[in-house]
Amino acid sequence: MSSSDKQITLYYNKLSVHVQRASMVLEEAKVNYKKYPIQIFAPKPDWYLEKINPRGLVPAITYGGPDVPGDQPSPEATVIIETSIIMEFIADLHPEANLLPKDPVERAKVRLFIDTVNTRFAPTFLGFVANGDSYQTVLDGARAVQKLLPDYGKWAIGDQFTIADIAIAPFVSRIELASTCGVGKYAAGEDRLVLDALNSPEFAKFKAYSANLQERPSFKATFDGDYIIDELKKLLV
Amino acid sequence: MSSSDKQITLYYNKLSVHVQRASMVLEEAKVNYKKYPIQIFAPKPDWYLEKINPRGLVPAITYGGPDVPGDQPSPEATVIIETSIIMEFIADLHPEANLLPKDPVERAKVRLFIDTVNTRFAPTFLGFVANGDSYQTVLDGARAVQKLLPDYGKWAIGDQFTIADIAIAPFVSRIELASTCGVGKYAAGEDRLVLDALNSPEFAKFKAYSANLQERPSFKATFDGDYIIDELKKLLV
Ligand SMILES: N[C@@H](CCC(=O)N[C@@H](CS)C(=O)NCC(=O)O)C(=O)O
Ligand SMILES: N[C@@H](CCC(=O)N[C@@H](CS)C(=O)NCC(=O)O)C(=O)O
Repeated sequence: MSSSDKQITLYYNKLSVHVQRASMVLEEAKVNYKKYPIQIFAPKPDWYLEKINPRGLVPAITYGGPDVPGDQPSPEATVIIETSIIMEFIADLHPEANLLPKDPVERAKVRLFIDTVNTRFAPTFLGFVANGDSYQTVLDGARAVQKLLPDYGKWAIGDQFTIADIAIAPFVSRIELASTCGVGKYAAGEDRLVLDALNSPEFAKFKAYSANLQERPSFKATFDGDYIIDELKKLLV
Repeated sequence: MSSSDKQITLYYNKLSVHVQRASMVLEEAKVNYKKYPIQIFAPKPDWYLEKINPRGLVPAITYGGPDVPGDQPSPEATVIIETSIIMEFIADLHPEANLLPKDPVERAKVRLFIDTVNTRFAPTFLGFVANGDSYQTVLDGARAVQKLLPDYGKWAIGDQFTIADIAIAPFVSRIELASTCGVGKYAAGEDRLVLDALNSPEFAKFKAYSANLQERPSFKATFDGDYIIDELKKLLV
């Protein structure tokens, strides 16, 4: 059995930003995989904490071992947790998908982009939408990301679509969606303010990049806007 | 000029745990590099914030470009920041040093080990030594790491020394050093308690691993215990 024939099970939740990253990388690599749903904002089943992810988070994947039901994971499977590690793992397993450049300097650029997304942009999604932080925090994050965008090419590091693009897509799309739908704990009118700012010349490069991301087939295949808005509305009452 | 002939400058500080990781990876890869000292716990020079690291942290490296003084970095050089990215970069640049396995599953294990060190063990160094957190936090971190150690082999993932080992070495050594020297903000007697616990059977595997790490030539070449203790004493008055 070649590595690409081994079973992969994704423990997922459709609302989760981190899960969408894992789903996108699996789609991009054209991997066959099974999905098993895990509730978030709820206690995790014991088998999940014991055999899959003691941290109690999604996503997680199992790789290899027999084809078993998701809630009866085999000890023969390898468990991989943490989105960044899952993204690098699938990129390593499927070099033909070209999700990571071969050149060490380009690889470092991909990783710095992901680190910047994780530390500067991603936290502004929950900050703005769930905690009601000022929309300025979103713009600060977008500025940090925009500074890294190249002068040529549609993607984070140029012409090649990589895991850097996957890392940001779920966050930028949810911020735009929640603002467009008026869903969130932000102060009244800040949905308009953030959308107007992102449409202003200052953010032209970021905005074009965001549009490219949301056109990507692997993004569309893994993003259910109606579901996300419904769930956010329930969570944010 | 092959990639390995390009200039590398390391912006460093001998007290810094993160810098020691970068130094160890450069030593392991037998890279020729220049060093430029940066003061920590002090404002960074403007040129450093503008041209090297806007985050104001060490380590950082420049790669390529002309051979210039460290405080006049060339725009032709690539700047790489963040320890994890520097470690992966040097491992990518020098595959012959075998600092990352080739197998995707093994690579994921290395990255999970690093993530566990970063999230569970590393924070306990400053927590215990600088903030006076209970020595139990150190033991909790050591338990999380020990759980990942393999049954056979001297290193984090077995027989191969990798960047996972580099990631933990500066932290475990400084905790042991500070406790042995009685330097730190922890409650009286907790230096003995932590050392005794680490010498107890529960931590036998962790302790043997820690000893292996501190015997590694790249560790010894980059660790100046007397300097570290002197600086910690000054900082912790
Ligand atoms: N550092 C983790 C973060 C994953 C994470 O925070 N997942 C959230 C969903 S987006 C989760 O599982 N939360 C558990 C819960 O809310 O029950 C990763 O990158 O995978
Ligand atoms: N996430 C960074 C952390 C680096 C870091 O915290 N460096 C400390 C020294 S260990 C620093 O430069 N602090 C700046 C200062 O204290 O002035 C990395 O992994 O490189």
